[in-house]
Amino acid sequence: MIIKNGKVLLFKNDDVVIEEKDVLIQEGKITKIEDQIKADGEEIIDATDKIVMPGLINTHTHIAMCLFRGTFEGCDLFTWLHKKIWPIEDKLTKEQIYDASIFSMIEMIATGTTCFNDQYFMPEETRKAAEKMGMRAVLTRPLMDTDGSDLNVRIQEFRDFYESRDENNDLITYSVAPHGLYTCSGNCLKKARDLAVEYNLPIHVHFLESIDEINSIKELHGEEASKVLKKYFDGIHTILAHGVKLNDQDIEVLKTMDCGIAHNPVSNLRLGCKIADVTKYKKAGITVALGTDGAGSGNNLDMFESLRTACLMQGGIYEDADRITSRDVIKMATIEGAKLLGLEDRIGSLEEGKDADIILVDISSKLDHISMLPNHDIISNLVYNTSGRDVDTTIVKGKILMKNRKFEQVDVNEAIKKVNQINII
Amino acid sequence: MIIKNGKVLLFKNDDVVIEEKDVLIQEGKITKIEDQIKADGEEIIDATDKIVMPGLINTHTHIAMCLFRGTFEGCDLFTWLHKKIWPIEDKLTKEQIYDASIFSMIEMIATGTTCFNDQYFMPEETRKAAEKMGMRAVLTRPLMDTDGSDLNVRIQEFRDFYESRDENNDLITYSVAPHGLYTCSGNCLKKARDLAVEYNLPIHVHFLESIDEINSIKELHGEEASKVLKKYFDGIHTILAHGVKLNDQDIEVLKTMDCGIAHNPVSNLRLGCKIADVTKYKKAGITVALGTDGAGSGNNLDMFESLRTACLMQGGIYEDADRITSRDVIKMATIEGAKLLGLEDRIGSLEEGKDADIILVDISSKLDHISMLPNHDIISNLVYNTSGRDVDTTIVKGKILMKNRKFEQVDVNEAIKKVNQINII
Repeated sequence: MIIKNGKVLLFKNDDVVIEEKDVLIQEGKITKIEDQIKADGEEIIDATDKIVMPGLINTHTHIAMCLFRGTFEGCDLFTWLHKKIWPIEDKLTKEQIYDASIFSMIEMIATGTTCFNDQYFMPEETRKAAEKMGMRAVLTRPLMDTDGSDLNVRIQEFRDFYESRDENNDLITYSVAPHGLYTCSGNCLKKARDLAVEYNLPIHVHFLESIDEINSIKELHGEEASKVLKKYFDGIHTILAHGVKLNDQDIEVLKTMDCGIAHNPVSNLRLGCKIADVTKYKKAGITVALGTDGAGSGNNLDMFESLRTACLMQGGIYEDADRITSRDVIKMATIEGAKLLGLEDRIGSLEEGKDADIILVDISSKLDHISMLPNHDIISNLVYNTSGRDVDTTIVKGKILMKNRKFEQVDVNEAIKKVNQINII
Repeated sequence: MIIKNGKVLLFKNDDVVIEEKDVLIQEGKITKIEDQIKADGEEIIDATDKIVMPGLINTHTHIAMCLFRGTFEGCDLFTWLHKKIWPIEDKLTKEQIYDASIFSMIEMIATGTTCFNDQYFMPEETRKAAEKMGMRAVLTRPLMDTDGSDLNVRIQEFRDFYESRDENNDLITYSVAPHGLYTCSGNCLKKARDLAVEYNLPIHVHFLESIDEINSIKELHGEEASKVLKKYFDGIHTILAHGVKLNDQDIEVLKTMDCGIAHNPVSNLRLGCKIADVTKYKKAGITVALGTDGAGSGNNLDMFESLRTACLMQGGIYEDADRITSRDVIKMATIEGAKLLGLEDRIGSLEEGKDADIILVDISSKLDHISMLPNHDIISNLVYNTSGRDVDTTIVKGKILMKNRKFEQVDVNEAIKKVNQINII
């Protein structure tokens, strides 16, 4: 396959640049990025008036939560979880999780996400859906015990899930996910660590999302959050979801660990968690990537909204120009996301030798794009004036998952109809 | 004209409700909102799967600034104005202002705005464009004198502009616009007041947008901003653009005046002005409406982005649920906007007797709308998951300006081409 005539987004000398190049894809990998590659029988994808860029990486989500979209506005995190979400989640069925997973993967593919890091129950259903849809995913069976559930049962569910994996499908990788330091006992965190060591997997954990969490963690563990984190997960690659409430001491602790932050700007704002100072975290050398969180709090799975919101909201806490830019958030949604998930050797940038996880973004001059015209600065417009709807084609490991906004592996209307009929609220 | 089968957005008992009604329009006015209105030869607009709602009101913008879109990211307000924008603006031509105005009106109509409050030079060009496009607008020739320009010349330009108005066109109304308290001497503010009294027009002024303004105003006038405001504009209806930096004393002063705030969430974030506490302003009883500001700082003129961002960003300063909601921002973009512009008797809500400024927003179940499905809460989705692109039809005073995303009064492609060719950066 050759992607021809596109504006290719590359990372060069720490900058984000757009160059007119062709991209050759062979056996799922990018094998050449050059001017005018001659076709030799390959399928040609015409990318005229399109940006050719790495697929977006959603580093923290709960995709089946599309079922909660639009509900329970204006709650704080603890009220939202305990009073609203968890009681309903207890009643969800396997079929609902599967249908919601298919639906959310259509949303992600249609808005340019090629890889997501999920944390939800009945993950077999989400895995089955990912296999059908051709998406790249990091999956897990989350662990929690302060809610009274039997930790041994949960761990066995995780083992069963992990051990039933298809070793030939390297699109699906795994994490060990203790839900959060405020919902897991020390014993649970220790067992999670043991599993991560045993299977050589990263940890994926909610961390300092809301103000209430700070005290909850101290009460439960007798220590501050970052000390608890270090105690259990030092030396293990750890994906921290949120990290809104890091103080300077926390940042110092995180710098000594192999960890990074999945920043979820829309969800943080909607749940009234205030603004994570990711400008500061990045300056401290901590990896910061982007996510949407579930659609119950994050509204949708359109990573372009996360890019825009992440960039804008730093202007809510900084009054000088020394804060993250469009260029930074594009990296956060791609190469930094790959680093955070431990997949940077395979994805996150368009480079020869990497897997071909690529999206084509339509920037042609037409009425629906009037908000990005005149297009003086493609990078800035990509962040501020592009919607996931502008994604025309989505490719994972060289396989086309959507072309000209059409899907072949699934009946989109049928999938939408199914989820429209589920009413759990 | 009858709009049939739609979901009509109404304000009832202080709440926002959606009801299935028909809307009858006669001679530019809404004359009936009822179940199943029988047609008697009227044109039928089918609004199946569409929200029928008041046109959005953009209460602060500089529409010709689409020419600056995407440029100069990461500046603070003063650097941005003095070093970047003003030197370029000095070179703009009449033709460029006209073409940019037509272009921006296409963007506004295509994203659901039916009325805008503008402040820019060569307003004759913008007026000519508004007449061609059929838009409702509040226009002015702004006044400023600390930049060395001759105030008498500016005032004469304002008089010439105002006095050359077409009295038969009530879609165009006027304001007197001293640019800001930091750019206008006391003499300039006094003359502005005199003009507002003479012509019975509202004042439109930039007010406490950025932190630097606080001291600039004190240095220039020897008093705090809100005292200066009260001194010159007490008793005159005043539209305050921004009002980000109001302290509690300022709020008390504003409460004694006939004024309200045009809140521009995206522009404030992009220019690093931090977050206006509009939750507090509203609680104090101050009218708060919405705007985009110019596209140079506000990125685009899509009011749906302003709705979403305004609602979300309060979660950047509030950690409890007691902050503005989707319902509030819908009012801010419609009826509160009408109040702020002094037009609430004519527009801002769908009510019998008001002018028919109406938009139809497509919420049908399809791939491009997957981020709003399943649609458990139409109001919430209208704010969080709707884009200006979902606007299907735009009507001003009973006249269709766009139908099924098609324009008759202008060649859209030609208008886009013209502006794409202007390069002033």
